[in-house]
Amino acid sequence: MLQIDGSRLWGTIMEMAKIGGTQDGGVCRLAFTELDRLARNQFAGWARMDGFEVAVDRAGNLFIRRPGTRNDLPPVLIGSHLDTQPTGGKFDGIYGVLAGLEVLRSLNAAGVRTLRPVEVVDWTAEEGVTFKPMLGSRIFTGALPLDEAYSLTDPDGRTLKESLEAIQYLGDRPFFPANVHAYFELHIEQGPVLEHQGRQIGAVTGAVGQRWYDLVIRGQETHAGPCPMSLRRDALMGAAEIALLARQIASADSDGRATVGMLSVSPGSRNVVPGKIEMTVDLRHPDAGLLSKFDQQFRSASADLAARCRLEIEITERVQIPAIRFHPLLVERVRSAARSMGANYADIVSGAGHDACNLALALPTTMIFIPCKDGLSHNAAESATPEDVAMGCCVLAQAVLATANDAFALEPKAA
Amino acid sequence: MLQIDGSRLWGTIMEMAKIGGTQDGGVCRLAFTELDRLARNQFAGWARMDGFEVAVDRAGNLFIRRPGTRNDLPPVLIGSHLDTQPTGGKFDGIYGVLAGLEVLRSLNAAGVRTLRPVEVVDWTAEEGVTFKPMLGSRIFTGALPLDEAYSLTDPDGRTLKESLEAIQYLGDRPFFPANVHAYFELHIEQGPVLEHQGRQIGAVTGAVGQRWYDLVIRGQETHAGPCPMSLRRDALMGAAEIALLARQIASADSDGRATVGMLSVSPGSRNVVPGKIEMTVDLRHPDAGLLSKFDQQFRSASADLAARCRLEIEITERVQIPAIRFHPLLVERVRSAARSMGANYADIVSGAGHDACNLALALPTTMIFIPCKDGLSHNAAESATPEDVAMGCCVLAQAVLATANDAFALEPKAA
Repeated sequence: MLQIDGSRLWGTIMEMAKIGGTQDGGVCRLAFTELDRLARNQFAGWARMDGFEVAVDRAGNLFIRRPGTRNDLPPVLIGSHLDTQPTGGKFDGIYGVLAGLEVLRSLNAAGVRTLRPVEVVDWTAEEGVTFKPMLGSRIFTGALPLDEAYSLTDPDGRTLKESLEAIQYLGDRPFFPANVHAYFELHIEQGPVLEHQGRQIGAVTGAVGQRWYDLVIRGQETHAGPCPMSLRRDALMGAAEIALLARQIASADSDGRATVGMLSVSPGSRNVVPGKIEMTVDLRHPDAGLLSKFDQQFRSASADLAARCRLEIEITERVQIPAIRFHPLLVERVRSAARSMGANYADIVSGAGHDACNLALALPTTMIFIPCKDGLSHNAAESATPEDVAMGCCVLAQAVLATANDAFALEPKAA
Repeated sequence: MLQIDGSRLWGTIMEMAKIGGTQDGGVCRLAFTELDRLARNQFAGWARMDGFEVAVDRAGNLFIRRPGTRNDLPPVLIGSHLDTQPTGGKFDGIYGVLAGLEVLRSLNAAGVRTLRPVEVVDWTAEEGVTFKPMLGSRIFTGALPLDEAYSLTDPDGRTLKESLEAIQYLGDRPFFPANVHAYFELHIEQGPVLEHQGRQIGAVTGAVGQRWYDLVIRGQETHAGPCPMSLRRDALMGAAEIALLARQIASADSDGRATVGMLSVSPGSRNVVPGKIEMTVDLRHPDAGLLSKFDQQFRSASADLAARCRLEIEITERVQIPAIRFHPLLVERVRSAARSMGANYADIVSGAGHDACNLALALPTTMIFIPCKDGLSHNAAESATPEDVAMGCCVLAQAVLATANDAFALEPKAA
């Protein structure tokens, strides 16, 4: 079993957290800023000190590489991101990159030679604060063509290419999605499930599909006093029913999610029955078929409600993100690694998007979660214990080691 | 039976609607503006042409008077208001004042002598656009002391006294609430009930009591994806349940009303489970006991919900407006007048506040409603048919005539 150095890993995470560290213990290190450049330099510097090769591609994705015995074989790739949200924490993304570095260091320390090369990547601008979310990994897989990406501009009119040049991370390494053996991403859960269940490790079997709706509900604006309840066409009561309907539909399965994150009331006066509501509904489920069933139930129940309450309900679907199934063999290797470490683990589904979700559409991919305190993320209070951080990295190390010795190619993809 | 001239009444309403008339057929004639002055002048001018006395009190309330045979007896008072909302219509308030004028004119035309004097009043600034709602009638009854009223300032720092001087309607007639025999107010319903029931006349038995609440619901802000439904503390779903609870409580009785007119979501992001909701709830019922029961049910159900959904729900009661019962004998006179006219009438409760609600706290009072198109009011589309307008005035005339011949004093009040 490959030993990792938990305190060394913890040290690199805490060191990295100083770059953009905020007074409240969080980190603000936005992509394409001077702080991003410094964080990348730190990571690349650590890698070079340990003798790993460093390469940057045309999307600014930063790779470090430990050769295998057969360098003509596609590498195993470990990755995540070093950029943060404006009110970010120390772990989201950063943990996955630095745990990758720790795996390479541990392979060195143990003098292990792997069949395949192992690489670690810091994907450019995962958080999407400036351009689009998961920018680097989308460009890498071809989901976002490079030309199209280069034509994007930030609010100041600066292009992606200029942004990369500004931090000196516009490289020339070609993209090689078809030439990656397997991709692993280790991440804090960003949710409360593992903590709630008392687990140390989540073997992530996939990511939820997402359907984002905008609703406009139109009724009849009228005085709060004179109009009897039975004659009202109250858009807000309709919205309340919609919200509870969505909750009911999604709650039918433990992996379902329904969220109403935005809701605005017109005219918005205390004594006026609202004539119009605009609201969002976000439905998620890891099973594409069941999510599609949620969609049908939601639309049909909304239509019934509209008829029953004499409302007009207009549903516009804004975004559809497909459900992702991670590679079964890689998921099993995570489980097996967790078992071998004696970790309390369980299968889990990612409720949020990650670079791994893009990768999974192009190549064999999986993820590993560890618990985070109170399920908090994108928050200065984001926190994980040194024990869980070390255990996650151990599991990653074993799964990567097994995979880096694959003499065969994996089935191209499972998503 | 006293005949009224429906087309003359309609003519005065249409003539008055020219003062502040808007392109879309509405009226914008705010209190204390030059248009308000012109409307008052028009009304007073019509009155003087017919030989009625004109008087103005220290709150700017404008009275016209037709003497009786016993001018030492307290008069019967008919009233409403000539000011409008910024997007007002031709009828709200105006109808009640001009129907009063029509009653006086009809009494003249028929050569009828009444025992008591009959007066018609245009109450100052009912709509409350500048100072407070129902300003003139509140000062008249003493509910708002004159000194206090005079100390109010508008957003430009102008006092009520200055505002009245500016339109030359600061008078010196003393207030005489204890010396009014009975007060009648004829008004469009401002709701859909009469129209829905196919009635011409509503004999208004009282006005709903109102309880206005501000709620703050606190849960846990979290990502829309990772957090399972069962672990969420979703403030928006709590708010949706509160809205439907309020609806359910109020719907237990056909005179109950529940409205959520304002609701704001924090943080208000599509993919974040809301951590905090601020909302208003407005509960109404004409029976004080039942409204009090609504209040208890609402608070108790909210507390249950808070415990069940692990939310904090803070309820602050902002305003309590007591339920009003109009004077039973005056209500019966309205019914009797409607019957004698062959009108299709029914008892009804006012869901909104009117000058009559203030008057009812001080002296024998009642109201008469006629249907308005689609229940609309405070709207350029506010509309009533000439037939209903005439019928309302007929009923008013008969009830006033009967009351103006009362040799006895009525029980002081019924509210």
